[in-house]
Amino acid sequence: MNMKVITLLTDFGLDDFYVSSIKGILLKYEKNLNIIDITHNISPFDIKKGAFILYSTYKTFPKETIHFAIVDPGVGTFRDFLYMEKEGYHFFAPDNGILTFIYEEYCPLFKIIFPDIWIKEASFTFHGRDLFAPAVGKFLKGEHIEMVPKPNPVLFEYKKPHKNKKGEVKGSIIYIDRFGNCISNIPYEMVKFGKGKIIIKGKEIALWVTSYKEIPEGKIGILKGSISTLELAQNMSSLSNFLNINFGDEVIYTPI
Amino acid sequence: MNMKVITLLTDFGLDDFYVSSIKGILLKYEKNLNIIDITHNISPFDIKKGAFILYSTYKTFPKETIHFAIVDPGVGTFRDFLYMEKEGYHFFAPDNGILTFIYEEYCPLFKIIFPDIWIKEASFTFHGRDLFAPAVGKFLKGEHIEMVPKPNPVLFEYKKPHKNKKGEVKGSIIYIDRFGNCISNIPYEMVKFGKGKIIIKGKEIALWVTSYKEIPEGKIGILKGSISTLELAQNMSSLSNFLNINFGDEVIYTPI
Amino acid sequence: MNMKVITLLTDFGLDDFYVSSIKGILLKYEKNLNIIDITHNISPFDIKKGAFILYSTYKTFPKETIHFAIVDPGVGTFRDFLYMEKEGYHFFAPDNGILTFIYEEYCPLFKIIFPDIWIKEASFTFHGRDLFAPAVGKFLKGEHIEMVPKPNPVLFEYKKPHKNKKGEVKGSIIYIDRFGNCISNIPYEMVKFGKGKIIIKGKEIALWVTSYKEIPEGKIGILKGSISTLELAQNMSSLSNFLNINFGDEVIYTPI
Repeated sequence: MNMKVITLLTDFGLDDFYVSSIKGILLKYEKNLNIIDITHNISPFDIKKGAFILYSTYKTFPKETIHFAIVDPGVGTFRDFLYMEKEGYHFFAPDNGILTFIYEEYCPLFKIIFPDIWIKEASFTFHGRDLFAPAVGKFLKGEHIEMVPKPNPVLFEYKKPHKNKKGEVKGSIIYIDRFGNCISNIPYEMVKFGKGKIIIKGKEIALWVTSYKEIPEGKIGILKGSISTLELAQNMSSLSNFLNINFGDEVIYTPI
Repeated sequence: MNMKVITLLTDFGLDDFYVSSIKGILLKYEKNLNIIDITHNISPFDIKKGAFILYSTYKTFPKETIHFAIVDPGVGTFRDFLYMEKEGYHFFAPDNGILTFIYEEYCPLFKIIFPDIWIKEASFTFHGRDLFAPAVGKFLKGEHIEMVPKPNPVLFEYKKPHKNKKGEVKGSIIYIDRFGNCISNIPYEMVKFGKGKIIIKGKEIALWVTSYKEIPEGKIGILKGSISTLELAQNMSSLSNFLNINFGDEVIYTPI
Repeated sequence: MNMKVITLLTDFGLDDFYVSSIKGILLKYEKNLNIIDITHNISPFDIKKGAFILYSTYKTFPKETIHFAIVDPGVGTFRDFLYMEKEGYHFFAPDNGILTFIYEEYCPLFKIIFPDIWIKEASFTFHGRDLFAPAVGKFLKGEHIEMVPKPNPVLFEYKKPHKNKKGEVKGSIIYIDRFGNCISNIPYEMVKFGKGKIIIKGKEIALWVTSYKEIPEGKIGILKGSISTLELAQNMSSLSNFLNINFGDEVIYTPI
């Protein structure tokens, strides 16, 4: 018999009892469960960062994995709790935009109907434990959970990278990792890799490399990043600190 | 065959090799083990915080779960290592007060007798790995571990919330979470929810809400918290920072 | 059927999607997998700290455990990815010195040959996910992975503690833990425990104790530490901060 795999992504941090309480409830339904933490260090309420991280990692897991994401500024209000299926992966998340990068119109999408008794007994502050986790637990165990189709999920707007007639591509920084590497949303295939320059924060960069190591000290390199978009980086140093680059900063690619 | 579930709660942090060494030892005894981290970020030696977190989450786990807590300022000295059973849960912890909120007089309570060879070979600084974990490992595997009844565990004193004739309740803040929400020890059932006011830090609060979202910006709300006590909070902002509220601060409820 | 045990040690931190992506890939190959985090909080690129932590904990795990360590400043360059076996434990790591404290000349040591298709499709920045994890996954599943003997691994130099004719031992601090305890590389058996003095940072210490608790406030004690070397510590206080002790600082033992 195989273990079932479920991931957790939250903004609960690792100091409080919130993460373990969710895990405890899930294990009440199914003990043969491999619970994998994606991260619990999303800044409180930062749905966009959560959305990006979920998008960047969900496919690395085996099919049938359940991805359970709780970044939920709306706890206690009447946002829906969603179930979505895509490419053999199962997603459970509040309806607040965290599925933005993953949702496609063809995806089966439902909202969960919670039993009255659950709602009555739930705390006002911890729906993750009192409503969401039991629903996911029932799903894990193969029990029926009531759900109805939900056509229009909440999605947040984000500028997709845009190419003009000259071949210029305007995109933005969508992630900065712990090493200070700056990940853009400009797909590798959208540019001529190795040709042209990048402008960010008024600075021109034209050093195309295939590894961090090739970047001389103090210089900035352009790489194919791990989600197949252009990434800007320094060698063993934080580019984010060096140029004060933040989430959302504009990135322009100009071909030669 | 089901996985066995064990939780770990320590003040070891996540940077050193201490947590993994405990897990390694446990896995030597039982490989089909689902080890769940409650937290390892208890401030060094903060038994009271560990006690509160253990209390707040232990029941969310399935029956037969083993809760193994090591916050142990006394490592190397002769405090006992306890085994306690309550409501189908198993607890292992040093005898230093960490079971304070969970212990009841009817709970079977024992101290572990370690084999001489273990004591002889143990390091002076890491009893968690050299004595506690092997004992828990034997228990997990169903092997005999020597233990004798232990009548009076170390418990730390804490003021239970008190109601006077006028219906006023005096309690205190027993937890502040990463969001800055301030959790009191005044049970929800001890007050008339929605009626009356709370005084904390000289400030009167009379805004009773059922979700964080209902609290207008800059205001403070009173909610039923996740452990069914009164909780004070702001909406997407840290109340703890705003009013400089700390563990132990007095909270007074006055009915209308 | 038993769960297979694998540990992970990285400098990826817990905020990004890097750790979960590695775990996802491993689970694609083998679902019945107990993945244990040693730590992901190694300072970026700090191979020496990673090497020490791996060395300090690997033996606490059951035989057949796979230890998978990725601290890899050289990602994207042509350092090898190694497989080593020692005492029934399996190690996978880039060839950059992280096995320094574990490697012995008698250890079977190989470098992995990655299939061309993997190399072609790998990102430039995340070999851990795109090359290393799939190779480890195949190994886990019992599938063939191509490897060839690799005689001379990269090892970093470190001074082993040295004893002179007078019985003096010169060593150094090789680890400082979260409590500020300072762990030296002088083996317990190399000195007369309880006799003599330690000099560090110009300060003489002659208080030999068997537990932190025995050290009076403000004083410094010498203990047998958890990896059986001499450790210097204060009681519930950070010695590292107190004396500004850092990794590499010299420690001299002089017998009476």
